[in-house]
Amino acid sequence: MSLIVQKFGGSSVADAEKLFNVAGRITDTYKEGNSVVVVVSAQGDTTDDLIEKAAEINENASKREMDMLLSTGEQITISLLAMAIEKLGYPVISLTGWQVGMKTDSHYSEARIHKVDAERIRMELDKKRIVIVAGFQGINKYDDITTLGRGGSDTTAVALAAALKADLCEIYTDVDGVYTADPRIVKDARKLEEVSYDEMLELASLGANVLHNRSVEMAKKYNVNMSVRSSFSKVEGTKVMEVVKMEKMLVKGVARDNDVARIALVGLVDTPGIAFKVFSVLAKGNINVDIILQSIGRDNTKDISFTVAEKHLEKALEILNDNKEAIGFAEIKHTDNVSKVSIVGSGMVNNPGVAATMFEALFEAGINIKMISTSEIKVSVLIDEKDSERAVSVIHDKFFKNM
Amino acid sequence: MSLIVQKFGGSSVADAEKLFNVAGRITDTYKEGNSVVVVVSAQGDTTDDLIEKAAEINENASKREMDMLLSTGEQITISLLAMAIEKLGYPVISLTGWQVGMKTDSHYSEARIHKVDAERIRMELDKKRIVIVAGFQGINKYDDITTLGRGGSDTTAVALAAALKADLCEIYTDVDGVYTADPRIVKDARKLEEVSYDEMLELASLGANVLHNRSVEMAKKYNVNMSVRSSFSKVEGTKVMEVVKMEKMLVKGVARDNDVARIALVGLVDTPGIAFKVFSVLAKGNINVDIILQSIGRDNTKDISFTVAEKHLEKALEILNDNKEAIGFAEIKHTDNVSKVSIVGSGMVNNPGVAATMFEALFEAGINIKMISTSEIKVSVLIDEKDSERAVSVIHDKFFKNM
Repeated sequence: MSLIVQKFGGSSVADAEKLFNVAGRITDTYKEGNSVVVVVSAQGDTTDDLIEKAAEINENASKREMDMLLSTGEQITISLLAMAIEKLGYPVISLTGWQVGMKTDSHYSEARIHKVDAERIRMELDKKRIVIVAGFQGINKYDDITTLGRGGSDTTAVALAAALKADLCEIYTDVDGVYTADPRIVKDARKLEEVSYDEMLELASLGANVLHNRSVEMAKKYNVNMSVRSSFSKVEGTKVMEVVKMEKMLVKGVARDNDVARIALVGLVDTPGIAFKVFSVLAKGNINVDIILQSIGRDNTKDISFTVAEKHLEKALEILNDNKEAIGFAEIKHTDNVSKVSIVGSGMVNNPGVAATMFEALFEAGINIKMISTSEIKVSVLIDEKDSERAVSVIHDKFFKNM
Repeated sequence: MSLIVQKFGGSSVADAEKLFNVAGRITDTYKEGNSVVVVVSAQGDTTDDLIEKAAEINENASKREMDMLLSTGEQITISLLAMAIEKLGYPVISLTGWQVGMKTDSHYSEARIHKVDAERIRMELDKKRIVIVAGFQGINKYDDITTLGRGGSDTTAVALAAALKADLCEIYTDVDGVYTADPRIVKDARKLEEVSYDEMLELASLGANVLHNRSVEMAKKYNVNMSVRSSFSKVEGTKVMEVVKMEKMLVKGVARDNDVARIALVGLVDTPGIAFKVFSVLAKGNINVDIILQSIGRDNTKDISFTVAEKHLEKALEILNDNKEAIGFAEIKHTDNVSKVSIVGSGMVNNPGVAATMFEALFEAGINIKMISTSEIKVSVLIDEKDSERAVSVIHDKFFKNM
């Protein structure tokens, strides 16, 4: 008898047939004697359709009204899913974000959860009902509807699991777990049984695209046991938890991120505080800098290279040019034809051989490394974008082929 | 500087173009210095589409979940209309039923309003915002979403007008007022400038199809000044109010109702309390009886004829047959090929000539009257359904032709 939170994404609930498939998964869990809370997203393309409807009327609609509009998508799903479960003959109730006390701040379209007053859900669980909750939405202190932004329904599920002290938070998706590499690139990619929160965070931010970082961060903070698994098969998924058992696999996965641009400032006057100047003006512009490389240039000058998200490239160049005199550099170079390829694994920090193995694989394949960055649980390299798929393959082969 | 509540139905907000038309009407009123609260229904066929979606999944879905589903229709309209008004450059905010404190009982799908906590709306009006409210919906004491049933948005508008002590409640529709007869039947039908609550109630229940009775009853109870007018023209509509100024027109309108069936119980034993027996079993079955005629039959027996709504005919026959012995009658006859045609007007009770004029018109047209019923402000006759359009025409001619 456990309390289980299950989250199903938009493609898992897209039509009547899929809703009944999901209803079956839910009632199977319920029949085993568990208390079940379910979080769902809007069906299929509903959110995009609503955005289009709004754009027809006002391309600059206020975010408050957009949230009022978009939150209807999940409300439709919860009622239809509840009807499917009623049809199967089980007690069920659907609840919106405001009904479950999902309290957020007032950043419409990307609100953050402040707290969850889960009293209503507990009352419904006491009545032995399956509880279906609208993901992605909450209310602020003015009683206005907010939405949580990308990956919002995952975050809703983890927040409810934390508030209810659930035994497990299952994230159902269209893949059956977290893999050692993107199976579309590496056909030998293996599914991981377990992965730690920190590893998952690195994998998510590196482009593995399975779970959104906000949900994993919240799971880590409240120690929520998560599981990533498929809506369409009964195969066991991947567990995401605090401490994973020691395995032979030091490296958990190889990830690739193409949304990267490199900027190089050439001919900086070599005075103390120069790096501070560069990165503080970028930080004021809300631009996150990732890998940083500082090198000695000619004639007592320095060069500084760093990466930013592709979408921030233009703004970063503008800010740097506006501050050219204050910073004092000769020239800016930039490119967005680069990719970041990374290996992630908790044991890495105590095994210097891991990074060397990665570099060896790239050397053997004739792939040039432009920048390197390491942390306790990952090693990232910046390479030409055209080499990135091949890089993921050869690195994956090197670590996993003979295991 | 008045406080005006405006209500727009589903056909008035069906697409982007119509939403901008409505937005124009609203901002015109606002520009004149008025405080404006707007109530809207779901767009066009949205409600029917949602009902169909539900039926695909569960034809016997609980009413609670149906209300959860259907209430999204109005929520979509309020956000889109607010976006259109934002586009025109006016301050605006949309609010759902629960946000405006529309408190109802728990009769899902046909909830009745208990009270309105209009504090939020007052706060928004103080900020000089146009307030757009979702019609048709409320919440019960458990914080669950309810819907108000047919004509629900009209009722929402009148309830808000009453709670806010609004100066006027304008109901925008696809006709430009209340007419002396259905203009599709009688091409000379005239638009009324004013009509009293009681007259409007009779006209609505007699099939004039302009306003729903619940909204008129509520307007009468709280003395809300209503006005029925067109979304698509600037023509003045019809005022609905407590006391209308004396006019030459004793008769305000001719209405027809085809949703009528007649039942006759023949050969009832003539004992006291027989009528009580008949109508109490029907009342227990929740069947409303309209016109009643009692006549002397053969051999010391009685006949009782009465009308019910067509949709209740089958159930009424079943109940009567089940109680045949207890009531004691020889035979049941019934037909649904009948119509009720009525004239309505407040001054009628003091002018016995009015009913005679109506009967004269029918006599001249060779239309046979099966039953007659009168009240202070109306005279109704039951006739063959096939004669009903002609009856409306000749009666209308008689009263209005030479005015």
